[in-house]
Amino acid sequence: MRSFTVFKGSEGGVARKSITTKPDELAGDQVLVRVTASGLCGTDLHYKTQDMVLGHEGVGVVEEVGPGVKHLKKGDRVGWGYETDSCGHCLECVRGEEIFCDKRSMFGTANFDQGSFSSLAIWREAFLHPTPDSISDEDAAPLQCGGATVFTALQDLRPTDTVGIMGVGGLGHLAIQFAAKMGCRVVVISGSDRKRDQAMELGAHRFIVMNKDKTTSADGEVWPLSRLLVTTSVQPDWEALLPMMAPRSKIYPLSVASGDLVIPYLPLLLAGIRIQGSIVATRAVHREMLAFAALHKIKPVIEKFPMTEEGIKEAMDKLDSGNVRYRAVLVPE
Amino acid sequence: MRSFTVFKGSEGGVARKSITTKPDELAGDQVLVRVTASGLCGTDLHYKTQDMVLGHEGVGVVEEVGPGVKHLKKGDRVGWGYETDSCGHCLECVRGEEIFCDKRSMFGTANFDQGSFSSLAIWREAFLHPTPDSISDEDAAPLQCGGATVFTALQDLRPTDTVGIMGVGGLGHLAIQFAAKMGCRVVVISGSDRKRDQAMELGAHRFIVMNKDKTTSADGEVWPLSRLLVTTSVQPDWEALLPMMAPRSKIYPLSVASGDLVIPYLPLLLAGIRIQGSIVATRAVHREMLAFAALHKIKPVIEKFPMTEEGIKEAMDKLDSGNVRYRAVLVPE
Repeated sequence: MRSFTVFKGSEGGVARKSITTKPDELAGDQVLVRVTASGLCGTDLHYKTQDMVLGHEGVGVVEEVGPGVKHLKKGDRVGWGYETDSCGHCLECVRGEEIFCDKRSMFGTANFDQGSFSSLAIWREAFLHPTPDSISDEDAAPLQCGGATVFTALQDLRPTDTVGIMGVGGLGHLAIQFAAKMGCRVVVISGSDRKRDQAMELGAHRFIVMNKDKTTSADGEVWPLSRLLVTTSVQPDWEALLPMMAPRSKIYPLSVASGDLVIPYLPLLLAGIRIQGSIVATRAVHREMLAFAALHKIKPVIEKFPMTEEGIKEAMDKLDSGNVRYRAVLVPE
Repeated sequence: MRSFTVFKGSEGGVARKSITTKPDELAGDQVLVRVTASGLCGTDLHYKTQDMVLGHEGVGVVEEVGPGVKHLKKGDRVGWGYETDSCGHCLECVRGEEIFCDKRSMFGTANFDQGSFSSLAIWREAFLHPTPDSISDEDAAPLQCGGATVFTALQDLRPTDTVGIMGVGGLGHLAIQFAAKMGCRVVVISGSDRKRDQAMELGAHRFIVMNKDKTTSADGEVWPLSRLLVTTSVQPDWEALLPMMAPRSKIYPLSVASGDLVIPYLPLLLAGIRIQGSIVATRAVHREMLAFAALHKIKPVIEKFPMTEEGIKEAMDKLDSGNVRYRAVLVPE
């Protein structure tokens, strides 16, 4: 049997070092990956009290391949995200929409003994994505979930669209870059002025402050939003946001929150607005996202922490308090 | 000046006969229409206490045309619906999406002195739709708003889709027919068993009873819904409906209701469900709807009432109590 170090959630909400044991022999299309970097996502905080290995923005190097592996080989650089398996046979799978497969393996619902807070991990070749040469492992990590999620919500844009990005954090700061490189006008909406300069540097064309008093300060001409990505960790003030939406526009609420969506009803109808549920990327979109990021030199802004109990705690605390600029990346020592 | 009979809402919520006066000369592309039939829509009930002429499912015959009219002539059969004018110049108008024009004239917000509860009405030629020869005036009336609204919510369907229709009333009974003729599997969801036979006759493939106790009786294989049109007069039990939706499916809430939309949040995200705000048809879709109805012999099931104070009261009371089968049509005496 082979053993490797992992970091699991614990009752106290702190990641604890543990050991996972797996058979020595890889089966079928399994690939053994040595983890070189892992992003830290808001979703990891949701699972921090669970007895499961955390981390789902994994990047690493192929160490060994199973007998059924056809395309990857030792030394290849790869990454993986929220989904690591699906049935391959249902209608959603054969359509290339395997993120909606009933039997999908997703972070939080499967593979509790391995993740990306881990020295090694074993995944199916079919769910590993080659890392483009021009993207470093540390930069590739936040793309595996944060990047994939916002890129999915930016599908089928027209370059003439105006895209609103609410929240400048792990997801938002990537969405700004992607949307700007797609040719769109990018409007950033944030709770304060603090991130204005950074947002403009990342490619935003305007910056709107929307605080609790619903004060919206805009400069110049109004640009109704064709699409809005809500990337804040809690649900926003929909009443204040709806008047900013163009007719037939689309809202992508990406916050992971429990409870109900509560949103003014008739304004949605009268303006023909769409609310589009969206999760992480299909594999096809994931790979297109990596290629697009490589072509346009889109990189996350990262803060590095060591992949140790202390390093993970420091990163999680900082994320929890909203102070990471803009994605924490854990690097094995 | 020319005078004609109209029926207006009143403080007591009862339509009262009144007289509207207009200049003798028609201007520009104005067309004088003699009303031969008018549908009664749930929205008319919303305005029954307002001092405005009711009715927006109008059908009639051209009596006279203004100097700028180019296509219509005396004797032509025409209809009109919720929207009767727009600016013609804004981005939405030039895109053919004039239902989202900022300056649109819609029932309830313009033209308080004329409507379809009226002996005559004057409209712009550009917003009158020729009635196909094979459709009678009485059958054409409910298509002008009810038919147009559901046909809009059935745009971009694939014939292999499964369409859920919640509510068998003025809108629902037309939606069943349209969706069935588009080749789709049609699942009707109703609060009781009473309308099962009628729904099946109209083209439904299955009928599901969903009552207050959330008892859902289904027969045979489960068909996840690719699209759901909610045509009930109040918002439905979303918690019971969401598990019936397929991944990446679309919900069209067509109920006109005030307040908020309150719907379970994470299930929307996880299944990639879209909630699509939608109102009445653009003119292009309106005309395609009429052609489709003519081709497939789609007709509303109607109950006729005389267009008098008494007739309107009887029809409105019956609609208010949910007992119209399935659309009331007012016919001038």
